[in-house]
Amino acid sequence: MQPPEPPGDEFALIARFFSELDQGASVVLGNGDDGAILALADHEQLVVSVDTMVQGVHFPVTAGPSQIAYRAVAAATSDLAAMGARPVAMTLALTLSEANEHWLKDFRLGLASAIEDFSLPLVGGDLTRGDLTLAVQVMGAVPAGMGLSRSGARAGDELWVSGCLGDAAAGLAVVLGELSGPQVSQDSLTKKFWRPQPALALGEALRGQATACIDISDGLLADVAHLARASGVRAEVAAGRVPQSSALRALTDEAQALRWALAGGEDYVLCFTLPPGAPAPDGCFPIGQITAGEGVYCDAEVEVYGYRHF
Amino acid sequence: MQPPEPPGDEFALIARFFSELDQGASVVLGNGDDGAILALADHEQLVVSVDTMVQGVHFPVTAGPSQIAYRAVAAATSDLAAMGARPVAMTLALTLSEANEHWLKDFRLGLASAIEDFSLPLVGGDLTRGDLTLAVQVMGAVPAGMGLSRSGARAGDELWVSGCLGDAAAGLAVVLGELSGPQVSQDSLTKKFWRPQPALALGEALRGQATACIDISDGLLADVAHLARASGVRAEVAAGRVPQSSALRALTDEAQALRWALAGGEDYVLCFTLPPGAPAPDGCFPIGQITAGEGVYCDAEVEVYGYRHF
Repeated sequence: MQPPEPPGDEFALIARFFSELDQGASVVLGNGDDGAILALADHEQLVVSVDTMVQGVHFPVTAGPSQIAYRAVAAATSDLAAMGARPVAMTLALTLSEANEHWLKDFRLGLASAIEDFSLPLVGGDLTRGDLTLAVQVMGAVPAGMGLSRSGARAGDELWVSGCLGDAAAGLAVVLGELSGPQVSQDSLTKKFWRPQPALALGEALRGQATACIDISDGLLADVAHLARASGVRAEVAAGRVPQSSALRALTDEAQALRWALAGGEDYVLCFTLPPGAPAPDGCFPIGQITAGEGVYCDAEVEVYGYRHF
Repeated sequence: MQPPEPPGDEFALIARFFSELDQGASVVLGNGDDGAILALADHEQLVVSVDTMVQGVHFPVTAGPSQIAYRAVAAATSDLAAMGARPVAMTLALTLSEANEHWLKDFRLGLASAIEDFSLPLVGGDLTRGDLTLAVQVMGAVPAGMGLSRSGARAGDELWVSGCLGDAAAGLAVVLGELSGPQVSQDSLTKKFWRPQPALALGEALRGQATACIDISDGLLADVAHLARASGVRAEVAAGRVPQSSALRALTDEAQALRWALAGGEDYVLCFTLPPGAPAPDGCFPIGQITAGEGVYCDAEVEVYGYRHF
């Protein structure tokens, strides 16, 4: 008696669409067993983070499968950048309402692209039936004691960001048909939404340099508030110094650009603090100061503070 | 300007219902940052596995929150047992349709109970809105090179299981009102369904002893088929030697008991192979042989081969 393996069952689907994505220097045992086995280097610690994306909440229902896959992995990977971790591996818990071959093929393309871009082999996962949801868990490594956290900012430190803000929110508006303008600007913004680039190299470079670090997922002011709270300090953001892309400015008026830059979220840019006088990291922008006290002060009024799920 | 922290938002919910579950010997940095930091011992490798449970698929819609939480963590933890890993930590990606205080309080009870029972602190998570889904990722550690896998069984090995089979499937039938009998038997079976006990101590003891190991989640014959395929061998299961509990026998006829024991699934008992003549591990039962060839042979006919999601 042979237990059957009908085509289309979960094992066949996993073998067909999720195999051979598990190659990596740290992978001792990849997919296909009860668990994967990963090797860290001596004196390294494990960094772990999980991010969920739900259709209709974190991406529009019209999103393509490869877009969804890439963006979910990028968003999760950004947390490794914020911790200063080198990428080790990821797992994916994928819930989908039906096993559609065309959908899964395209999903794999985006997944494979992110795995390659971020050096993050897929070493485990689970495929279940239900509303389309991706739970991506990322694992990285830092030399013992060298992980970045949100909690080390001190009065006197300067506040920095690693890139332009507001593009992802504007990109989503373009995707939803709520914003339009020159094609080249539209394309630039939608690419920022679909294919954010976690600042992994910068995160590693900031080890031992930055006093605190966080990635911008909820929106600049909301995330700076997290950093300030964790560090027990006050943060002052100079709205005029927050970098905005030319594409964002081409498609919006000044007020909307500022709202998105301060509160749009999902740019997956790093926000970090450096001691006063520290050299400027390449491509980064000083946007404010850390002072004694608590909370976030910004010299501009904005109405939206970042996305809340409940 | 202070970003608001309205009661009921995701951060407040996480602080209220998911805090202080992150204490453990391996936890360097727990919840509340972009990621957690975990320390392994020297010469240890990381074991990682992820399991998703969806309402209506993996548990009935009538399931209580604490039951759901405990069972989801136990099921995921069983994969660590199957790899011979000591538990290190877990993360939880929880999707739920509404933030109900009563529900979350009860959910925390079951979660905390599992965390304590399995020494698996919760070091990260994500809370999103959608259909009730739990993606539990567990992390463990093994001495380098000592992790168990499915792939080492050899012709001549004996096939073992670590406990009675079929109870969880019968317990679910009791929960669904499809099976009844003496209350003490019902209670025993439903407890096996709601609170499976991953064989963590046995898994660690089998390091360097068992040639292959898997946990019974899909059903004995289906999981033995996985083991046989990964090892490139044939497995022969003696149906009459598969242990059945007195509670299962009290509530079912012989044929039904056998069906559930061979194919019911979700018992989270270990199935493993030992070289011929190896001493019997405490509380374990020999149920068959490994021979040259492929597939699974069983000297009884059953109709169901384990749950398939697609």
